[in-house]
Amino acid sequence: MQAPSDRWNLTRVRISCPAVLRAAALLPLLLLTGAHAAAPVSPDTVAEQLREAALAGHSVAYAWVSELTTRFGPRPAGSLNEQRAAEWAAARLKALGFDNAHVERFPLTAWVRGSESGALVGAVPQPLVVAALGESPPTPADGLEGDVVIFPSLAALQAAPPGALSGKVAMVNLRMVRTQDGAGYGAAVEGRTEGPREAAQRGAIAFILRSTGTDGHRLAHTGTARYAEGRVPIPSFALSAPDADQLERLSALGQIPRVHLFSSASYRSDAYSQNVVADVRGTKKPEEYVLLGAHLDSWDQGTGAIDDGAGTAIIVGAAKLIRDLPHRPQRTVRVVLFGAEEVAQPVKPGGAFGGHAYADGHRAELERHVLAGESDLGTERVYAVELPAAQLHGDFATRLQRLLAPLAILPPSRSPEDAGTDVGPSIVAGVPAFTLDQDATHYFDIHHTPDDTLDKVDRGQLEQNVAAWAVLAWLAADSDLNFRSAGALPPPPAD
Amino acid sequence: MQAPSDRWNLTRVRISCPAVLRAAALLPLLLLTGAHAAAPVSPDTVAEQLREAALAGHSVAYAWVSELTTRFGPRPAGSLNEQRAAEWAAARLKALGFDNAHVERFPLTAWVRGSESGALVGAVPQPLVVAALGESPPTPADGLEGDVVIFPSLAALQAAPPGALSGKVAMVNLRMVRTQDGAGYGAAVEGRTEGPREAAQRGAIAFILRSTGTDGHRLAHTGTARYAEGRVPIPSFALSAPDADQLERLSALGQIPRVHLFSSASYRSDAYSQNVVADVRGTKKPEEYVLLGAHLDSWDQGTGAIDDGAGTAIIVGAAKLIRDLPHRPQRTVRVVLFGAEEVAQPVKPGGAFGGHAYADGHRAELERHVLAGESDLGTERVYAVELPAAQLHGDFATRLQRLLAPLAILPPSRSPEDAGTDVGPSIVAGVPAFTLDQDATHYFDIHHTPDDTLDKVDRGQLEQNVAAWAVLAWLAADSDLNFRSAGALPPPPAD
Repeated sequence: MQAPSDRWNLTRVRISCPAVLRAAALLPLLLLTGAHAAAPVSPDTVAEQLREAALAGHSVAYAWVSELTTRFGPRPAGSLNEQRAAEWAAARLKALGFDNAHVERFPLTAWVRGSESGALVGAVPQPLVVAALGESPPTPADGLEGDVVIFPSLAALQAAPPGALSGKVAMVNLRMVRTQDGAGYGAAVEGRTEGPREAAQRGAIAFILRSTGTDGHRLAHTGTARYAEGRVPIPSFALSAPDADQLERLSALGQIPRVHLFSSASYRSDAYSQNVVADVRGTKKPEEYVLLGAHLDSWDQGTGAIDDGAGTAIIVGAAKLIRDLPHRPQRTVRVVLFGAEEVAQPVKPGGAFGGHAYADGHRAELERHVLAGESDLGTERVYAVELPAAQLHGDFATRLQRLLAPLAILPPSRSPEDAGTDVGPSIVAGVPAFTLDQDATHYFDIHHTPDDTLDKVDRGQLEQNVAAWAVLAWLAADSDLNFRSAGALPPPPAD
Repeated sequence: MQAPSDRWNLTRVRISCPAVLRAAALLPLLLLTGAHAAAPVSPDTVAEQLREAALAGHSVAYAWVSELTTRFGPRPAGSLNEQRAAEWAAARLKALGFDNAHVERFPLTAWVRGSESGALVGAVPQPLVVAALGESPPTPADGLEGDVVIFPSLAALQAAPPGALSGKVAMVNLRMVRTQDGAGYGAAVEGRTEGPREAAQRGAIAFILRSTGTDGHRLAHTGTARYAEGRVPIPSFALSAPDADQLERLSALGQIPRVHLFSSASYRSDAYSQNVVADVRGTKKPEEYVLLGAHLDSWDQGTGAIDDGAGTAIIVGAAKLIRDLPHRPQRTVRVVLFGAEEVAQPVKPGGAFGGHAYADGHRAELERHVLAGESDLGTERVYAVELPAAQLHGDFATRLQRLLAPLAILPPSRSPEDAGTDVGPSIVAGVPAFTLDQDATHYFDIHHTPDDTLDKVDRGQLEQNVAAWAVLAWLAADSDLNFRSAGALPPPPAD
């Protein structure tokens, strides 16, 4: 790994390189007319053309996310809307000229939000903005009521002795930190995933969470709580940040906040979800795959524009630009639009989620998956790239760096620790991973809220993402590099 | 009226004037210790001290709006919360040393929001974020359903012939313009007030409105629709801006949006609201009043922090600084916290609103009200001041301008056309009006939404407001000026 000072020097050199300026004047028209170049075009020149075509707005990305979110709205895992969206996506990918576009179903126990409400009760009642956490069980039909015990963090809740919360409503009031790289979410999200179990173990009748988010709107950030012994143990809710502040201030005024909570959430054990798979078939080694992933399902409060309609638009947009090249790459570029990502659980009875279903269903192909990446962090710009250790240094990284520098992306300096939920099971099975790291500064203002709608998609930044994905996917697919290690790939199956 | 170029020159002169710098170093400590100055202090010096004390954060304003909104939350007209808040306010004003602090009740038919929902129906259902407009009647118990006809403006709806909307849901999709002076609201709000009646006259079964607001959140801006023949004729709803966009895009895709709407709103004819009145009694002419108004009620979705908890905080904060002066002003400074402002109607059966109740109940005193103003536009800074024509030019305006210039407030250049809803009936009865014009650039992002909560109050800007109000109220109250005309005031009543 290079020292930070080296990285900055390299960056400056690249940004001042004349190639950067030349690239901006290159030949997207050649690409768009579909005319074959008179002379052979180098792979890096093709990458430049892909990049400039994306930046010029010639990808289908924005139209894709607009139509997806408009026609199908929210697409919760296992819902009719998710299924219809998947059917549409497969048909649309086929119409766009993708090969092998199809839907792969898998069974699922679907969680269904019902009616829900929260309120401060007592002498001066006040409504509260709440959203049941995903997988959270319903309350009794007339709701439940209890005094709220506020903990500043999950750790503080965990420090409470057994029985300490008997008959109470436990609340974790951790304020999420705004960061560029999403580290603030990582530091806060355990409150949501583990809080219900920890509260239940101490006798709490319900759990409420200051939303894991960075905004100040009266919108609660939902998300999945983790199972304990096969279920989320108690009714659990996210509370909007201003409502959490209100409870905190009431406590400071000497009142014990007492709340009424209601949810009629339910489960459907006969549901299904699906992955949508489509290929840009490679010319020389079609049995080798560069996998681009994103998820088609969304939380139910918004229309899943930034999470993750945008991700599906970015990878479809990039792959379609590659599809339309005069000369397609040697390897196959595979697009997978995963289902049911939002309800992923380490252990989930009654069904898997898309990432597991794909890895299980394509187990025999996985060793021929040369590289995989996932776009699932909204539409802010890519600012860094991470590569598998086998190719973190050397010619591929150097070429990639030169091609991404005009997009204001830092040189590769490390390998992914976590490339995403959906490609995770494939990566565990040995598929090498890359990441194109997006700026997450504003993502968690909107993430998992009703505010996740098309108007939040920044078209210019979306196109910068498409450009980066097209460049990386093309370079990897048109190479014969091994991203696993220095060794050669095993021979293709006899088939 | 001065030409704009003159005004700018004047502003620059004032801002560069050494008095501005001297003012910042003046004697808030003298004020705060309550010590009597050894030498007589000029009224303008007292005004400077008031201003600097406010800017230094020594007013009760922030604590007031924090406690009001935390303890009582939403305070819709006629509600228990509004009543409790009024009782608290009167007691708190008494404790702060105000004279004559009391509550004045008036009858009201209260509108009560019930459950409500909206959804796109059909092959791919989608929930919609709606809020019933104030005073809007309920739907049938199982809701209503209809195809949506979208009009880009109220004028376009008005151009539809009678019967054209039979069985339909009419929608006005006007986008409100963001402006500093609130003109965008003025240009848009008729869609809300008149839309229901215009839609009903053409046969519509319901009315939906693109929220009259400037934000892009999934929060609907409620507000009152106008009566036609004593009632709002059809169920009427505001729709969040992203939802309105969604309906528009679905139409563009060739679909006719069909919606299901439900509201169980109701009315209570035996309700009451109240004004809270409190005085800083004048030393020489206590029967002459400078009236500072704001409203204590709020819409029910938020906690009424910027509309209008902040206004009540600003006028109470300013009046309390005057109350604590070593020498109080000659005239009485009266604070009125009005009730039921949000449901003000030109003609309202079954009850009045606070502004009418005050003007009616204090009719005999009104001719001794020398000046009145109202704070009801949030917490952004004051940037201009308007004075009654009788004092728009001359010594008072010049002194005021010098004292407000350090707060970055433009010189007075015109007289109010509309000084506010609550002081309106008093002004119609002849009371001269001033306005301290707040920057409204961001106000309508939040106005009438669930987002109107304490965290939206900018404390620094709140204190700039307090400073401006304290200066103006003090100067007017410690003078013997007639703001009605050049003539003298009538003699006080025999009592």
